[in-house]
Amino acid sequence: MTRWRLTVEYDGGPFMGWQRQDHGPSVQQAIEDALARMTGEQAVVHAAGRTDAGVHALAMSAHVDIVKALTPHRLREGSNALVRPLPVSVLEVAEVADDWHARFSCTGRRYLYRIRNRRAPPALDAGKVWHIAVPLDVAAMQAGAALLVGRHDFTTFRSAHCQSESPVKTLDRLEVARVGDEIHVHAAARSFLHHQVRSMVGCLAMVGRGQWRAEDMARALEAKDRAALGLNAPPQGLYFVEAIYPES
Amino acid sequence: MTRWRLTVEYDGGPFMGWQRQDHGPSVQQAIEDALARMTGEQAVVHAAGRTDAGVHALAMSAHVDIVKALTPHRLREGSNALVRPLPVSVLEVAEVADDWHARFSCTGRRYLYRIRNRRAPPALDAGKVWHIAVPLDVAAMQAGAALLVGRHDFTTFRSAHCQSESPVKTLDRLEVARVGDEIHVHAAARSFLHHQVRSMVGCLAMVGRGQWRAEDMARALEAKDRAALGLNAPPQGLYFVEAIYPES
Repeated sequence: MTRWRLTVEYDGGPFMGWQRQDHGPSVQQAIEDALARMTGEQAVVHAAGRTDAGVHALAMSAHVDIVKALTPHRLREGSNALVRPLPVSVLEVAEVADDWHARFSCTGRRYLYRIRNRRAPPALDAGKVWHIAVPLDVAAMQAGAALLVGRHDFTTFRSAHCQSESPVKTLDRLEVARVGDEIHVHAAARSFLHHQVRSMVGCLAMVGRGQWRAEDMARALEAKDRAALGLNAPPQGLYFVEAIYPES
Repeated sequence: MTRWRLTVEYDGGPFMGWQRQDHGPSVQQAIEDALARMTGEQAVVHAAGRTDAGVHALAMSAHVDIVKALTPHRLREGSNALVRPLPVSVLEVAEVADDWHARFSCTGRRYLYRIRNRRAPPALDAGKVWHIAVPLDVAAMQAGAALLVGRHDFTTFRSAHCQSESPVKTLDRLEVARVGDEIHVHAAARSFLHHQVRSMVGCLAMVGRGQWRAEDMARALEAKDRAALGLNAPPQGLYFVEAIYPES
């Protein structure tokens, strides 16, 4: 048996999310089915993050145990040929130690949120950005974002379905930058609560619109109450960027 | 009657091309139908370039004559609301002189061609790039591209269906640059022959693969023969970037 690390890009649009579901297609199922056709084995694929329906990944890390002897090249090429036409692509494959775990060995996760901030709706990037037509105040958004960085109880920014044991997380980075007609929000932490990034971005958008002041981000955080949440940003603007591991 | 200039972004994927066709959807028809629903008028929309099936536009310029009194704001918002769910977006609207013509007033056209040059196929940008899995030699491609710049008979790089009176064109710019895991080819000229950019990019890809030497680009040009063409690049990597006008 070999434990393989997979680095995977996917368009979250047609999926119910990463995790296998009874009621619709998932990224996990797409990869597991492709591997099963290649190996004859029903192996479970574990990911660093279980992204929601519609959320994309530029480079998700995952692992899988396979008995059949394979080269990294054959595993990647075979997966990509068999997963078609679903929008999933195995970028890299590497053999890892038997105790390496995509989720539990992961020490850092990075997300990008893309807001297309212009009057006209997106045509080329439909389903890949959150469209906000009114001009946003990026400086105010950045000021608000800075108030969330650090170790806090993020109960306000946590989904009711969150399975994390504790609402206390350390947010290492939350930065807002204008890139052409887009606004990018960069978030990094060891781990996030369910819906945390989308909840933070939703509130930052309220700051950008002038409906909230930057200081209202701190007020929402201190409330430790989901009812203090301004808005949950939609999934299609969110990208899982990278999973970080001690050895990588 | 007012002549309006429209700047339009579109995803070429679902269309037979810019120009209205009997046998399938076109960008022109999508916009004309939206305008007809808004105004009750059957106005023809003229574009700076008639892109092929599958070719995208970041900012196509077009014009249309409308009798009904409209503000630029209402024309843009109404078009974008009525063209949905087709992936077409009117970015800007401006009133222009009655003798301004999107095609005949245009003095420069810019295209971008995107090659995704990595082993794994694209998932997030499927239908938006040409995927070439083998590593391409960008320096050789750039050397080959430089040989085409200037005033030449581009018969080799011209489609059999080209309606241009002369195969002689002046290519102002043809540059190849690596951007992350993509290779971008930038092309600019007053006007292009039908399939010229895709034909040039197809040959440059042969140079990048080492199947042609850079000098073979000059040999193909001098042959003035379509049979000397190496390869026509597929449409989905091509973007109409900008139309240039004397006053803009």
